[in-house]
Amino acid sequence: MALLGIDLGATKVTFATFSETGIIISKETILLGKRKGKKVGSLLTEKITFLIGSSGYGKDKIHAIGVSVPGISHSKTGTVWAPNIQGWDDYPLLQEIKTVSGDIPVTIDSDRACYILGELWQGNAKGCRNAVYLSVGTGIGAGILVNSEILRGSRDIAGAIGWMALNKPFHEKYISCGCFEYHASGEGIAKMAREYISQENIYTGILRSKPAEELTSYDVFSAYENGDIVATKIIEQCIEFWGMAVANIVSLFNPEIIIMGGGIFGPAVRLIKEIRSEAEKWAQPISMKQVRIIESALSGDAGVYGAGFLARKKLIAKLL
Amino acid sequence: MALLGIDLGATKVTFATFSETGIIISKETILLGKRKGKKVGSLLTEKITFLIGSSGYGKDKIHAIGVSVPGISHSKTGTVWAPNIQGWDDYPLLQEIKTVSGDIPVTIDSDRACYILGELWQGNAKGCRNAVYLSVGTGIGAGILVNSEILRGSRDIAGAIGWMALNKPFHEKYISCGCFEYHASGEGIAKMAREYISQENIYTGILRSKPAEELTSYDVFSAYENGDIVATKIIEQCIEFWGMAVANIVSLFNPEIIIMGGGIFGPAVRLIKEIRSEAEKWAQPISMKQVRIIESALSGDAGVYGAGFLARKKLIAKLL
Repeated sequence: MALLGIDLGATKVTFATFSETGIIISKETILLGKRKGKKVGSLLTEKITFLIGSSGYGKDKIHAIGVSVPGISHSKTGTVWAPNIQGWDDYPLLQEIKTVSGDIPVTIDSDRACYILGELWQGNAKGCRNAVYLSVGTGIGAGILVNSEILRGSRDIAGAIGWMALNKPFHEKYISCGCFEYHASGEGIAKMAREYISQENIYTGILRSKPAEELTSYDVFSAYENGDIVATKIIEQCIEFWGMAVANIVSLFNPEIIIMGGGIFGPAVRLIKEIRSEAEKWAQPISMKQVRIIESALSGDAGVYGAGFLARKKLIAKLL
Repeated sequence: MALLGIDLGATKVTFATFSETGIIISKETILLGKRKGKKVGSLLTEKITFLIGSSGYGKDKIHAIGVSVPGISHSKTGTVWAPNIQGWDDYPLLQEIKTVSGDIPVTIDSDRACYILGELWQGNAKGCRNAVYLSVGTGIGAGILVNSEILRGSRDIAGAIGWMALNKPFHEKYISCGCFEYHASGEGIAKMAREYISQENIYTGILRSKPAEELTSYDVFSAYENGDIVATKIIEQCIEFWGMAVANIVSLFNPEIIIMGGGIFGPAVRLIKEIRSEAEKWAQPISMKQVRIIESALSGDAGVYGAGFLARKKLIAKLL
C-alpha cells in the first residue's frame, strides 16, 4: 500500500510515493518550464496515470493521492486559485485528476496547509494539536493547525498572514501584498535593498557589487553575514517584524509550536533566537513561555510530505 | 427542562435560567461587593443550590449549568484564573460547584468564549461556523469560533488579542497589558486622555472639566461627540488600531462575521463603518469582502447567553 504526494509549486512539481508510515519510496521533481494553464494540469494527470498504472515506480499500488497547490484550494468546488500559474484563477484540478484516478481518493490543499501537515506527520510538529508553520519565502503565509485540524476559515483563505498589519500608518505600497509581506518576505528584503542602494549615494558596501535591480534576499543575507551596515539594518528590521508576527500567533492561537520555514528559513534559521527575544517583548507572557519556536525539519520537502499526509488522511477516512 | 447560565464578572454575577430554545425564564444580578476568594465561590454554590432545588425559580427543573468566568478556564483541571477576583489565581471552581450540583452537568469557560457562543446561540452569529467576538472593555479579548468550536489553544489561553503587536517599536508601557490593549481599550482611552491633559497646558477643552485622574473613556467619547480636538485625536487613533485588529482577524481567520462588543461598543458602535474602512486598507482583500462587521446583538447579556449555551452543549453531549 503506497500513498502519492504531489507538491505543485510556481516553477516545479514534485511527485513522491510514500509508505503508509511516511517513508519516501520514490521522488521526482519536474520543472514546469513554460507550461501554463491546462498544460500544467496535463503534466499532473499524465504523471498520475503513469504512477498509478502497472508501469509505475514499484510494486506497491497507490491507494490515495494528495496534492499541495501554490495558492488556495476551494474545498467545496475542488477548484484552485494559484496566482503564479497562468490561467489558474479557478482551475478545476480535482475534477481533472478524477478523470484519471478512478476510484483512488484524491485530496487537494494549499501549500501552507501542507507544510504544517508535513511537519505534523514526519517533522517537528509530531504529536502536536495546535501548531503553526510560518512560511517566509517570496511571499508569506501560515499553515495553522487548530485542535489537530487545518484552520480553513469560511472560504478556505485563512492563514493569509502576509497581510498582517504591523506598522501603522498604512502606506500605499502595502496595497498589493500586505504590510508584513512588504517588509519581511524574501521579495521584501530584496526590494528594501534595491530601494536603499538606488537612493543612497554615500554607501559603498558589498551590496554595490551588482546592479541594484539584480539584488536578491540571498545577497542581503550574505552581506549581513559580512557585517554590511545596510544589510544589517534591513535584517534587524525583519527580525522585528518576524518577532511581532510570532508574538501575534502566540497571543491569538496559544500553540505548542511555531515552525519557521520557507526559503528565507534557510539563511534566517540562525536568527530564531533573536526572533524569539523580540516576540517575548510583545506576546501574552504565559502563552509565550509555553511555545517552542523551531526551524522546519523537512525544509523543501514539507509540502510533498504534507501532500502525502493528505492522501493518508483521505484513505483513513475512506477505510473507517 | 431548563438550563442555568451564570455570568461571573469582576464586580457582579448574573444568574439566568433559559428554556432549551434560548428564551430567558428568569434573570438576577448580584453585586460581588467586597467578596473575594472563597466568598465568591460560596455565593455561586449557594445560589446554585437554591436554583436547582424545589424552591428555585420555576417549575422547570435545571438540567445543566454553564458558567462564564472573567479570565481563563483550564479545561483539564476545572480551575479558573481570574485576575480581577482576589484569590482566584487557580481557583477550583468546577470541583466546588460539583459539591452542590449532584448529577447535573457543569461546564465553565472564559467570558470571551461565552460572548461568541452567546451570539452564536441567540445573537448576530446565528448559523455561523467561523466567527469572532472582539470584546473591547476595560481590557480587550477575542472569543474565536473555528469550524463551530471555540479556539482554545494548547492551554486554554488563545484569543489574548489585547497583546497583539500593532505599533512598532516596542515601548516599556506595553509590558503589563500588551500593545493593542494599551492603545485601544477603555482603560487605554482614559489613560491617553489623562496623559494628554497632564502634559499639555494650551488645551482648554471639555476634558478639562474634571480632574485628569477622574477621566473615563465615556468622558472621552462624550467630548468626541462634541468635536473636542483632543478626544478626536484619541478616538481617531483608536479607530486605526481597531481597524488593524479587525484586518488581522480577517486575514488570519477568514471568518464570516466579526462582532464588536464589550463596554466600548457601546459608544463606539457608531464608528463601525470607519473601522471597516480602516480594516479594508490592510486585510487580505478577498476575505475582507466576505466578512460582516457588526455590533453585538446581546451586549451586556452576551456572557450569560453564552453560559446558557455551554449548559445546552453539555446537556446534548450527555444525552447523545
